[in-house]
Amino acid sequence: MSISSLEDFRARLLDLPSPDAEAARAARARQEQLTKPPGALGRLEELAVWLASWQGKEKPDLERPQALVFAGNHGVAARGVSAFPADVTVQMVANFAAGGAAINQLCDAFGASLRVIDLELDRPTADLAIAPAMTEDECRAALDAGWRSVDEAASVLLVGEMGIGNTTAAAAIAAALFDGTGLSWAGPGTGLASEGVTLKAKVIDRALDFHGAFLGDPLEVLRRLGGRELAAMAGAILAARHHRVPAILDGFVVGAAAAVLFKVNGGALDHCVAGHVSAEPGHVRLLEKMGMAPLLSLGLRLGEASGAALALGVLRGAVATHNGMATFAEAGVSGKD
Amino acid sequence: MSISSLEDFRARLLDLPSPDAEAARAARARQEQLTKPPGALGRLEELAVWLASWQGKEKPDLERPQALVFAGNHGVAARGVSAFPADVTVQMVANFAAGGAAINQLCDAFGASLRVIDLELDRPTADLAIAPAMTEDECRAALDAGWRSVDEAASVLLVGEMGIGNTTAAAAIAAALFDGTGLSWAGPGTGLASEGVTLKAKVIDRALDFHGAFLGDPLEVLRRLGGRELAAMAGAILAARHHRVPAILDGFVVGAAAAVLFKVNGGALDHCVAGHVSAEPGHVRLLEKMGMAPLLSLGLRLGEASGAALALGVLRGAVATHNGMATFAEAGVSGKD
Repeated sequence: MSISSLEDFRARLLDLPSPDAEAARAARARQEQLTKPPGALGRLEELAVWLASWQGKEKPDLERPQALVFAGNHGVAARGVSAFPADVTVQMVANFAAGGAAINQLCDAFGASLRVIDLELDRPTADLAIAPAMTEDECRAALDAGWRSVDEAASVLLVGEMGIGNTTAAAAIAAALFDGTGLSWAGPGTGLASEGVTLKAKVIDRALDFHGAFLGDPLEVLRRLGGRELAAMAGAILAARHHRVPAILDGFVVGAAAAVLFKVNGGALDHCVAGHVSAEPGHVRLLEKMGMAPLLSLGLRLGEASGAALALGVLRGAVATHNGMATFAEAGVSGKD
Repeated sequence: MSISSLEDFRARLLDLPSPDAEAARAARARQEQLTKPPGALGRLEELAVWLASWQGKEKPDLERPQALVFAGNHGVAARGVSAFPADVTVQMVANFAAGGAAINQLCDAFGASLRVIDLELDRPTADLAIAPAMTEDECRAALDAGWRSVDEAASVLLVGEMGIGNTTAAAAIAAALFDGTGLSWAGPGTGLASEGVTLKAKVIDRALDFHGAFLGDPLEVLRRLGGRELAAMAGAILAARHHRVPAILDGFVVGAAAAVLFKVNGGALDHCVAGHVSAEPGHVRLLEKMGMAPLLSLGLRLGEASGAALALGVLRGAVATHNGMATFAEAGVSGKD
């Protein structure tokens, strides 16, 4: 069902399905029987049980992972807040279509389908420093585009983005949701030098000042400081929850979109795992604020769902061991003394 | 060529081949052309260049990864230093052969061949607390078995182990090589409670005291405090170096075997990457001593090359992006402002 308004979206965000406790119990019991010391597979064990709980079966599968990369353009990019020109967004979307980007190779390597959703790239959002980035209907349409893009039958959803200027939007959202100034959340993004980061922080401070009175509502933060791809990611993450599709979040910009949901409903991200922590300095703090422990920390700062795709590899290890290992009884191995 | 003596092994350890600087340069130049901000793939970029340098080609491949799991039994296990009975070593080797262990699933998931090499499991090493674990010829034979097991044509070698009692041997080696007492290196292994860890630390202290005068030579540390699978891993890692096969190290016990090589020749592990840091508390410190930054930190503490196999997934991401991505010129994407 289409998202009819921001209030419709809020209502869906406040009425969330729970994981399958029985499947989780069965998966946990299975882990205890497998030929390894209890707990010896660490986070792989947690991941297998978590996947089981959302897929609703003792033995989860990863037969149909879906990667979604949302692309948007940002009016604020004209202020020089990125190391790359705004043209790169549309050029990279063409690169995705031609199969030449990092995420194409990573989806091939880890067996995920890839769909790129470009959101009115010829109509950048308004400059968030001096205006709401989106009208209510623009924000609603982007939430809806994200919601509709999720495959209900996906085994797991990988959420990523592309958009020159969008770490400025993400940092502004983080500052509005969790307090702090521009400097406490701005980072180099695609590769700003320190003067560029200082400029970016000032732009964020100006935006916080301009929108200040309206930032008590996280959905209003998204509309005023976000961008189409951020709203679409929020829509996709919430749709995944309603379809009980577990989701892997990528980097800082995805984290900011997810944080909007988290601030409205503290349980909204229970079906999500942080695929990695990026090199963008705000990301580690954002994950801490949400109580999420990233699976990987490899110094990535690319976006495109690249860290989420690598994390899919870890999930494959979790599912392979969970589903394929022999039990102590099957293998005739002695238990703990 | 067979290892004829410990001195023969030492000579090979002091005469090491270097990586291919030209291949590394070409790989680095390629990374700079790919459609991403410079450095945005973080450690994936380093890994691609490192693989290129050891494989001697600009575009490395992972067509033939070889996982080796070495199994040995330890006289010291009779002192109750493990949560599991010593019978489990041979039972787990049978489980490997039957395809039921974690490493079987992980090798399938990440596309590595698996070979398990059991080293005279019916003849445990002597009790290292009161005698040298191995005679010179036993140690030589184990080094040789490891050396001979490496496939010269492997794309990458994954090194792992299985042996009830072997975290005691590994902790004793770490204490002898890097100083410290039993308590500073002993951990729960497969799941000891705190009294067990205390006992284990005392056993290590007794061993350090007994062998003290002979621990200045790292190879003597290996012979006196190690075990057959530890010596075999040292042999395999050194053989990989001589064949220019890059290697992924697994956990704490592998790290202790590798540390023996490192202490003889500080450059001996340049062809190695630490696949992960395990939950065994000594491992993080051991890696720090060797200046190695692990790729993964997922709370694993299983051994069997399980962490190395997961890290192979990360390497697959590194090679896929390095070899498959379009360049800025090919894709018509604008560069940095």
